[in-house]
Amino acid sequence: MAIELETARQHLLDSVQCCDPERCKLVNCWDRILAEDIVADSDYPPFDRSLLDGYAVISMEVERATPKQPVVLEQIDYIPAGSIGRHAITQGQAVRIMTGAPIPAGASGIVRLEDTKCAGTQVAILAAVNPAKNISRRGDDFAQGEVLLRRGKRLNAGAMGLLAMFGQAEPLVYRRPRVGILSTGSEIIGIAQALAPGKIRNSNNFMLQAQVFEAGGEPILLGEIKDDTKLICDVLQAAPACDLYITTGGASVGDYDLMGQVFDRLGIKAMFNRVTMKPGMQVLAGIWGHSLLVGLSGNPAAASVSFEVLVQPVLRKIAGHDKLLRPMIKAVLKTDLRGTSTTRRFVWGRCNQGLSSWEATPLAYQRGGILKSLVSANALIVIAPGTPKLLAGSEVDVMLLRE
Amino acid sequence: MAIELETARQHLLDSVQCCDPERCKLVNCWDRILAEDIVADSDYPPFDRSLLDGYAVISMEVERATPKQPVVLEQIDYIPAGSIGRHAITQGQAVRIMTGAPIPAGASGIVRLEDTKCAGTQVAILAAVNPAKNISRRGDDFAQGEVLLRRGKRLNAGAMGLLAMFGQAEPLVYRRPRVGILSTGSEIIGIAQALAPGKIRNSNNFMLQAQVFEAGGEPILLGEIKDDTKLICDVLQAAPACDLYITTGGASVGDYDLMGQVFDRLGIKAMFNRVTMKPGMQVLAGIWGHSLLVGLSGNPAAASVSFEVLVQPVLRKIAGHDKLLRPMIKAVLKTDLRGTSTTRRFVWGRCNQGLSSWEATPLAYQRGGILKSLVSANALIVIAPGTPKLLAGSEVDVMLLRE
Repeated sequence: MAIELETARQHLLDSVQCCDPERCKLVNCWDRILAEDIVADSDYPPFDRSLLDGYAVISMEVERATPKQPVVLEQIDYIPAGSIGRHAITQGQAVRIMTGAPIPAGASGIVRLEDTKCAGTQVAILAAVNPAKNISRRGDDFAQGEVLLRRGKRLNAGAMGLLAMFGQAEPLVYRRPRVGILSTGSEIIGIAQALAPGKIRNSNNFMLQAQVFEAGGEPILLGEIKDDTKLICDVLQAAPACDLYITTGGASVGDYDLMGQVFDRLGIKAMFNRVTMKPGMQVLAGIWGHSLLVGLSGNPAAASVSFEVLVQPVLRKIAGHDKLLRPMIKAVLKTDLRGTSTTRRFVWGRCNQGLSSWEATPLAYQRGGILKSLVSANALIVIAPGTPKLLAGSEVDVMLLRE
Repeated sequence: MAIELETARQHLLDSVQCCDPERCKLVNCWDRILAEDIVADSDYPPFDRSLLDGYAVISMEVERATPKQPVVLEQIDYIPAGSIGRHAITQGQAVRIMTGAPIPAGASGIVRLEDTKCAGTQVAILAAVNPAKNISRRGDDFAQGEVLLRRGKRLNAGAMGLLAMFGQAEPLVYRRPRVGILSTGSEIIGIAQALAPGKIRNSNNFMLQAQVFEAGGEPILLGEIKDDTKLICDVLQAAPACDLYITTGGASVGDYDLMGQVFDRLGIKAMFNRVTMKPGMQVLAGIWGHSLLVGLSGNPAAASVSFEVLVQPVLRKIAGHDKLLRPMIKAVLKTDLRGTSTTRRFVWGRCNQGLSSWEATPLAYQRGGILKSLVSANALIVIAPGTPKLLAGSEVDVMLLRE
């Protein structure tokens, strides 16, 4: 039952929904996904503010001021930032004002300090001032009622600052999706164990942990378990509640098609058990109670690619992201890309901005040494079914791993 | 004492060094910076492994096998993954073997299950096998002694998998740099406080918190404090030990040049107090004991840019990163860019891959509404001093915020 990648992905996306939203103290909100639109509850700035240190004046009164013919005014007040003026300005008067302080009533311009000369309570204004300049008007930046941020926005530096500016001390964000990760295989041992004949260490758990983090999830490592249907079911049933469970291994269709048996034993109907892609053809998925269970290949090359193209978008949907799919671009191959396949291929690569276009270098190690490729990969090169050997200079489709 | 941006940055970089390294459990290592080279302590795979389910054979014995003229062999053993064979293969013999299991002695090829037919202890081989295929040889992926990862590498999915594969249960990583962030200004109130006349909320703290996270640091929010030299010194002296302290506000050269006074009172000699760039000209920095203290402007537009171009590389050096500076690319302006300046300008923008080149769109809000720009910015457009108004279609230099 092999199905097309797009169909498989759509089945997976249709089977999940956003996590519950939760209130979170702003100090802990960086990189979380907003679960509500944020609307300005007031104008910003909340009052007309001075943009610099200087003198608030009636601009018409100083429109002919020059260093040689200064206009002399009476300083009647002094407004540091955070204070408010006690007196309105009338003819012949000025108020000393600091950056960020509210413009006093009656003033229509701010002369910068460098263009003034102060002597006692008298101040000589040495230059005219444009009324529009040096003042940030109430609501200049944001008007009350304006939508500042949309649901689904990942909270970056700008968004964090905006939330603070508008007093959003506990915004509504989505809970991070919990993802249980279990490696199956009688050859797999824990990372701190000494190697024994026929054994290898559990690297998939940690590779996928990082991929889950990068997709905005909260990974929960469930360790490794030998090829035994009942034991695998026991571990999954005893695991903490998760939105998604990922297993690796036992997904092939041989003697040890253990995950098929695990699905049967847990009463899960598989949506599919093969996807037409390479690597990563062996992947099965089904709904298990309130969770999604996805069984990936035990081969790190296959598991890492299946995760990126199938599981990552699903995880972003659960996490509440507004964008689910990675950006696709066109790039020029820097080196030949050998091999052909009747199914779509994905090759880890490194993408750089060349002089006139993107350039993509396929990374050499695509089999067991895949982890070495994955260390420097920032893209997956996508090769259409039946494509002949590609020479350097060919144009290819590339999925960027980072925005 | 205004100095060039590059000089200021070099002064800052010269004044700091890497954080101490620490052992960290692998499960907590994602996104940390490696503090040692990692060398393969063994070959990988550690033994010759089967890449699929099938039969281990002497390949010469089956070189003429076809479905019509199969070669019949005696199955003498069965090796699931994680086990080792009990018997070497000799003439006329085969061993059933599973993916990942060690190749038995005497075998020189693996025939895939689909090309065999089993009856009792007899197995009919229906196809020849290439000895090089279907077997992953000891050391094929990594040879003992090979450098797997270099000091300074940020631990991504590939690196995490490699560390696990080679049993690095507690690699040496750099401690995350601690960065204290304090907002000064009598107009600044906490985010949960109600607005009062002349007051605005402390958004710089949260904007910079996110920028510090993005640079790999551990931000410590020190809140807000009014324009009072002694109080500012008190807060800094009572703050937790940090590698770097960042203040905002009081950096201008007016009546309230508070940070200059703070430096004097703390016995800090400023390396510089102005940098020729716009925005962000007002920035001062000095060594305070074992820490670096950097005073940024209170204007979020200036503070965010100063952070990116001056502080971020310093933070990356403290964090142990191998690359300190952001990548620079050329892009084509999508819209006109007004205004000229005798100093270098930085404008928040959004950069996208166009059909044949990068395209950069300057973001409209560059003053107080900067946070709105920063929400969608992924780049800083860099404009050389004295550049006239730039029309759409002009080529500009762009600093990408993400790799």
